[in-house]
Amino acid sequence: MALFPKRYHPPGTPPGTLLSGTDGDQPEAQITLIDYTAAELSIEPGVDAARCKAAIGQQSVTWVRVQGRPTAQFMSDLGQALELHPLALEDVLNGGQRPKHEPYEGQLFVVMHLPVVDQGRISLHQISIFLHERYLVTFSPCEDEAFESILKRLQVAGTKVRQQGIDYLFYSVIDLIIDQAFPVLEHLGVRIELLEESVVSSPDRDALNQIHEVKRNMIFLRRSLWPQREVVSRLLRDGEEWITEHTRLYLRDCYDHTVQIMDLVESYRDMSASLLDIYMSSASMRLNDVMRVLTLIATIFMPLTFITGIYGMNFGNNEHSPWAMPELKWYFGYPLVWLLILIVVSVMLVWFRRKRWI
Amino acid sequence: MALFPKRYHPPGTPPGTLLSGTDGDQPEAQITLIDYTAAELSIEPGVDAARCKAAIGQQSVTWVRVQGRPTAQFMSDLGQALELHPLALEDVLNGGQRPKHEPYEGQLFVVMHLPVVDQGRISLHQISIFLHERYLVTFSPCEDEAFESILKRLQVAGTKVRQQGIDYLFYSVIDLIIDQAFPVLEHLGVRIELLEESVVSSPDRDALNQIHEVKRNMIFLRRSLWPQREVVSRLLRDGEEWITEHTRLYLRDCYDHTVQIMDLVESYRDMSASLLDIYMSSASMRLNDVMRVLTLIATIFMPLTFITGIYGMNFGNNEHSPWAMPELKWYFGYPLVWLLILIVVSVMLVWFRRKRWI
Amino acid sequence: MALFPKRYHPPGTPPGTLLSGTDGDQPEAQITLIDYTAAELSIEPGVDAARCKAAIGQQSVTWVRVQGRPTAQFMSDLGQALELHPLALEDVLNGGQRPKHEPYEGQLFVVMHLPVVDQGRISLHQISIFLHERYLVTFSPCEDEAFESILKRLQVAGTKVRQQGIDYLFYSVIDLIIDQAFPVLEHLGVRIELLEESVVSSPDRDALNQIHEVKRNMIFLRRSLWPQREVVSRLLRDGEEWITEHTRLYLRDCYDHTVQIMDLVESYRDMSASLLDIYMSSASMRLNDVMRVLTLIATIFMPLTFITGIYGMNFGNNEHSPWAMPELKWYFGYPLVWLLILIVVSVMLVWFRRKRWI
Amino acid sequence: MALFPKRYHPPGTPPGTLLSGTDGDQPEAQITLIDYTAAELSIEPGVDAARCKAAIGQQSVTWVRVQGRPTAQFMSDLGQALELHPLALEDVLNGGQRPKHEPYEGQLFVVMHLPVVDQGRISLHQISIFLHERYLVTFSPCEDEAFESILKRLQVAGTKVRQQGIDYLFYSVIDLIIDQAFPVLEHLGVRIELLEESVVSSPDRDALNQIHEVKRNMIFLRRSLWPQREVVSRLLRDGEEWITEHTRLYLRDCYDHTVQIMDLVESYRDMSASLLDIYMSSASMRLNDVMRVLTLIATIFMPLTFITGIYGMNFGNNEHSPWAMPELKWYFGYPLVWLLILIVVSVMLVWFRRKRWI
Amino acid sequence: MALFPKRYHPPGTPPGTLLSGTDGDQPEAQITLIDYTAAELSIEPGVDAARCKAAIGQQSVTWVRVQGRPTAQFMSDLGQALELHPLALEDVLNGGQRPKHEPYEGQLFVVMHLPVVDQGRISLHQISIFLHERYLVTFSPCEDEAFESILKRLQVAGTKVRQQGIDYLFYSVIDLIIDQAFPVLEHLGVRIELLEESVVSSPDRDALNQIHEVKRNMIFLRRSLWPQREVVSRLLRDGEEWITEHTRLYLRDCYDHTVQIMDLVESYRDMSASLLDIYMSSASMRLNDVMRVLTLIATIFMPLTFITGIYGMNFGNNEHSPWAMPELKWYFGYPLVWLLILIVVSVMLVWFRRKRWI
Repeated sequence: MALFPKRYHPPGTPPGTLLSGTDGDQPEAQITLIDYTAAELSIEPGVDAARCKAAIGQQSVTWVRVQGRPTAQFMSDLGQALELHPLALEDVLNGGQRPKHEPYEGQLFVVMHLPVVDQGRISLHQISIFLHERYLVTFSPCEDEAFESILKRLQVAGTKVRQQGIDYLFYSVIDLIIDQAFPVLEHLGVRIELLEESVVSSPDRDALNQIHEVKRNMIFLRRSLWPQREVVSRLLRDGEEWITEHTRLYLRDCYDHTVQIMDLVESYRDMSASLLDIYMSSASMRLNDVMRVLTLIATIFMPLTFITGIYGMNFGNNEHSPWAMPELKWYFGYPLVWLLILIVVSVMLVWFRRKRWI
Repeated sequence: MALFPKRYHPPGTPPGTLLSGTDGDQPEAQITLIDYTAAELSIEPGVDAARCKAAIGQQSVTWVRVQGRPTAQFMSDLGQALELHPLALEDVLNGGQRPKHEPYEGQLFVVMHLPVVDQGRISLHQISIFLHERYLVTFSPCEDEAFESILKRLQVAGTKVRQQGIDYLFYSVIDLIIDQAFPVLEHLGVRIELLEESVVSSPDRDALNQIHEVKRNMIFLRRSLWPQREVVSRLLRDGEEWITEHTRLYLRDCYDHTVQIMDLVESYRDMSASLLDIYMSSASMRLNDVMRVLTLIATIFMPLTFITGIYGMNFGNNEHSPWAMPELKWYFGYPLVWLLILIVVSVMLVWFRRKRWI
Repeated sequence: MALFPKRYHPPGTPPGTLLSGTDGDQPEAQITLIDYTAAELSIEPGVDAARCKAAIGQQSVTWVRVQGRPTAQFMSDLGQALELHPLALEDVLNGGQRPKHEPYEGQLFVVMHLPVVDQGRISLHQISIFLHERYLVTFSPCEDEAFESILKRLQVAGTKVRQQGIDYLFYSVIDLIIDQAFPVLEHLGVRIELLEESVVSSPDRDALNQIHEVKRNMIFLRRSLWPQREVVSRLLRDGEEWITEHTRLYLRDCYDHTVQIMDLVESYRDMSASLLDIYMSSASMRLNDVMRVLTLIATIFMPLTFITGIYGMNFGNNEHSPWAMPELKWYFGYPLVWLLILIVVSVMLVWFRRKRWI
Repeated sequence: MALFPKRYHPPGTPPGTLLSGTDGDQPEAQITLIDYTAAELSIEPGVDAARCKAAIGQQSVTWVRVQGRPTAQFMSDLGQALELHPLALEDVLNGGQRPKHEPYEGQLFVVMHLPVVDQGRISLHQISIFLHERYLVTFSPCEDEAFESILKRLQVAGTKVRQQGIDYLFYSVIDLIIDQAFPVLEHLGVRIELLEESVVSSPDRDALNQIHEVKRNMIFLRRSLWPQREVVSRLLRDGEEWITEHTRLYLRDCYDHTVQIMDLVESYRDMSASLLDIYMSSASMRLNDVMRVLTLIATIFMPLTFITGIYGMNFGNNEHSPWAMPELKWYFGYPLVWLLILIVVSVMLVWFRRKRWI
Repeated sequence: MALFPKRYHPPGTPPGTLLSGTDGDQPEAQITLIDYTAAELSIEPGVDAARCKAAIGQQSVTWVRVQGRPTAQFMSDLGQALELHPLALEDVLNGGQRPKHEPYEGQLFVVMHLPVVDQGRISLHQISIFLHERYLVTFSPCEDEAFESILKRLQVAGTKVRQQGIDYLFYSVIDLIIDQAFPVLEHLGVRIELLEESVVSSPDRDALNQIHEVKRNMIFLRRSLWPQREVVSRLLRDGEEWITEHTRLYLRDCYDHTVQIMDLVESYRDMSASLLDIYMSSASMRLNDVMRVLTLIATIFMPLTFITGIYGMNFGNNEHSPWAMPELKWYFGYPLVWLLILIVVSVMLVWFRRKRWI
């Protein structure tokens, strides 16, 4: 996840200007047209703006699903065909929007973030949704935005989503996006619990890097998921125009999920802050251990080396003085030095034991 | 307590889908049917959904108490028999809900967390409660959800709970769950006070682990108990439909307990943050102590070893030069070296004393 | 102050159950009956519940002052005689309530915390107050709850408290309890300022313990005094039924004191957090000092010891090689070694000076 | 600034009791009577309460300016003469009030804090202001409360303050007190910026003490200036009775200043917290530097000393064994040892270079 | 960016006094008069106040654009000509205002901060804007305030800004200033991401300085950009008098940008706080590494040096005692010492390996 996710025009550009991006890694935008009533369903992949315009005039429920990164021309064509607001089109093209709920005249524009975990890496995709009276338009920068499961339910005649109107389809999309946070949080939860164990046993560079990656992820998830909760809350409060009483009950359940998600996010934040504390205190404990070993060794061997140094001096060569290291000439001189050494070591060890260092 | 407590459907599953869990450690769900008026009381363990349906039609107060983890089939049968809302059934089955207060038409669905301390380990059980006009349904994943004390009071004719209606029974259940936090907090309080003493005297790895366990517990308890307070507060504010004026007074007392509990939780959080501070400062103090000993030893013995090194040099063998270590030939050479050593040690000790290191 | 101050019933006990405590250290409860009009005053110590009941029927202002820890029987008798609400009686008996304002029908129940500093130890006593239309009941667990000063003012005919009604007496009690925080805070303020000096000059274990004791005290005081402020604020807002316009002005002054107190408490908290910062940075500075000394000594003496080691080698004994330590045979060999040693020491000292280590 | 600035009565003293302080360092209170209309102005220093009472009866604007610390008698006389509320008089005498806005009947009592920086020391003086319909009374504990600039503007006929009524004078006093925070904050800003530089280059004890002094100042300033903002805000909201529409516009400007001041105070707090972070990280960096030098020296010289130790052993004296240190008898023995030493040093240096320690 | 950005009058100066600054580095103020209708456009650089007064009387839209730092005389002339409020003029001259929205009678005064990044240095310029019914006055202290892009759009007949009225021009100016934050935040985002990598690999003094510079920048940006958001929000809420329904839609888009900007600012703050954590933990890890090396070396070589010290003692010279270091005379004495040395080293290495230090 980039720290600065937005693409922006040079300041001073007139509002509503559409500029194509140059990100070559995303496939070009493809439109799939899904049109259904309780009785019939048609799915047409790879259609163009004109076909969409034709479809939306009818009494069926129409879902225009756009996948991939659109060009400016594509957006402007589709925008005109489906009467999408220019300022909203700009937000779709530029990306990096925060989740938001923007009512325009005759349409509702909603931006959501779809959290995805792929091989341990968490990313967030901006899903833009336009809700009109009889049709829904969704934009997703990536090809696989997980909407297949809704499509499958649509394909079975008699399912709730097939029988209800456009607002239930809209709810289903929102609900799907919200619920995608659960696998991501589960993944993070497992990771934090593993880290919790490893950071106590071996507080090394790898653990540190992982902690910081988790913290970074939490910063990004929080930035995305808090406003997501706000979006659902506002849909509940102000969305009467768009959402029937029946669907509202399900949306409330969905809101409940956003609350659970934020609860988890906040707990994880606390946990990851706590992990750094554990790391720092474990590291300081290890430093203490290392220093204690050093001090033990130095405290024992420095006096001993001093003793051997004494009897390594060459005063004994002076034959003329009785004061010239007479110890060297004692019968038990050498064993006595060893005795002295043992006494020094014993005293040290007892002292260390009493200081509880060993 | 797991960091990610929730069981969730794959995103995109239709709302209200019931899936059985595979957690083998919980016993299968058992229904106990308690039915009473001020005059009579009947307790029937091990009944099925049909028996419950028959019981709730009458004028008595009925309590359907479910213990153990239910299967999807069990839930769906009981849900139909007792007219429980499907979205709420899903919450009961999936677990990991935060405490919440969800009014559906004709019923009130409340999720509470029962804190339990067992052999020093704190865990939280989700208790789900459905309140209808004349019957109450409680779900608890564990067999022992501490409701026995209410049962005992019910068995005595003339007790308040026996004479009052369904709302007082409901209050009694809520009150019991709330009050279970007190023994848990008392347990934690004792533990924090013990830790407070031990962390000052011996800031070791065990103390560190315990601090982090306490902090972890506080994170989890807070996550559960804050919304619990909110639930009781909303029952007080919006629960007129369900709770009589008489019972409301008792519920206010119960709310007062949730406030006390949160007060304690917040104090404990402050205390456990403080414990980590004590730990870190104690550890840094110990490091200072260790380093001071090392420095003392090194500062005293390094110059001494240098002195003995000087007179261990072999210049004295050069007979041709008067400059070749004449000290070795002095009459008092060796005692003078000892004198020098004593002077060096004394100067060092005086200097350390003035620096207040010893 | 205990971390878990509450005494609680086993969860599931019916509300309003009165249980005697077993704390043997508090004296048994004693009732003093104070009854006055502007003209007359009678003080009767050691009366019983029946005498109180008789007194409250009259037109005078009656103050039933209970000191010491009451038994369940005592509470139940007095409660019946004076019509005190059973839920409130339970709060009085159990203790550990947070300051609160609880209006019951026909009576107002207020819990306050009296902060007391005794020989440097701060403690908080729960004072429970019942305000009825013509009488006031106060409960204090300790014998000396500082109400003597009000009694003295009552004994002088013509003082304001004597001439005004029950609400002014009530205000006087509240005001006295609030103002008791000032000496406690002054004591803590002096202590923090002393600590501030000592922690800079000698960041030792004693300073650390004192900082943590102050922080602990601040956590407890804050837990008590914040809700106390809320109590006075609610008396001002909702207390019209109980407090005359005239007394309200004085109560506003009292509220002003609670604001000042919280201001001080918050500043003290900031200061004590700051003290820990000072401690940690002072300690790290001392560690730096110690390590610098060690490094200085090691850096100077290790090369010197190496030099003496060189000329302590026994290669000079080899008479057959001109390469065998010819230095040992030089005329100025030994003085040259000393010169080398002096040069090494000088270079080191200059280098340290330039690094600003000495 | 004292941590506990308040002087308080023994708890239980009747409200409104006036007690003289014993602080001998402040001069006795002096009254200056300023009386003006657009046409005339009279300034009478050193008057008494009776003279004030005479002056306030007239149609001119009267300013009773009290400087120095008043006695209880002085306050009570002046209070009676000018009809000042007794509870407010107590606040003036006791000092240590937080800035507040207290409307009494017929008068407005305002407490403000005048920040003063004198020779690098910041202090706060309590200015008490009574606003009546036609006169203003100001109390300041110090002789120089900076009101001279208002007096100068009053002395020039035709200035706004001379032409407008009592409310504009009141505004001028408030504005002056608020604006006094700017030089204080400028002084602190310069100090923080100097500290910012010095703490990076030399994180020593002096820098640490200065950081903590700045933090302490910020705690105190914040405690005073936040409620000051509240006072001005309440004057704007509720002060219609006292302040004309014309003056209100100026007061809004004054409020804008309080907002700017709080903005600066909050930024400074962030900066001073940041300074401590810089200090701690600089200190830890220095410790790392010191330890690296120590380790370098020890790692290079310990192996070398070991090598010289080897050849300092006396095995060579054993003539009977070919295994007895034959190196000593090699022709190039001594140069080979030097070669070994050079190799060891080179390897070490290369290794350190690769670890980027040198 | 200066910590204390404000220029202020000596406290006590009458409100609305204009004082010229003495900052010689800014060019003198220049007025450009832009006057347009949908049909015509005239741009006159270097005009004076009188010319402006003449222009504003007409039905066209007039933009008085002032660049550079004005003198007191200049402001007072222009203020009188264009009827700008004196208190607002003071704010323009003094600078250091926080972004604010100040409605005066017949005019709206808005202060904004233009963030600019120049060669890696971030600065904030105060832009002051007066909106009247038919003309707009903008003040900018620097010559290049990025308004050229609006001018370019104005020069093309048929652009929206040319066709709409004064409120759209006003919106365009506000929008431009807001959007200037994006390049600044992008610059900071890149910098933080670079820092994130470098701080892990080499936590040195330079990284530390950069972290603190980023944190400093975030403190300043936050101080400016939060109130900016408030300004746009208040324009939306209370600006009906000034802003048409049509322009309001664009302003909402602009508000959305301020929300995105604050989101980014808060994330960056979290990230930069996190950077310091990474720095501190990396530094402590490096210290651990260094200390481990030191301890390894000392623990291995100290015992070895002791061993060589033993056999460097001169007891062997004593021919009279069989106890006088008989090892020296053993046939395999010297190889055995080497064996002993190898054993000691091996044991140490195994022990270190088991402690996971190597």
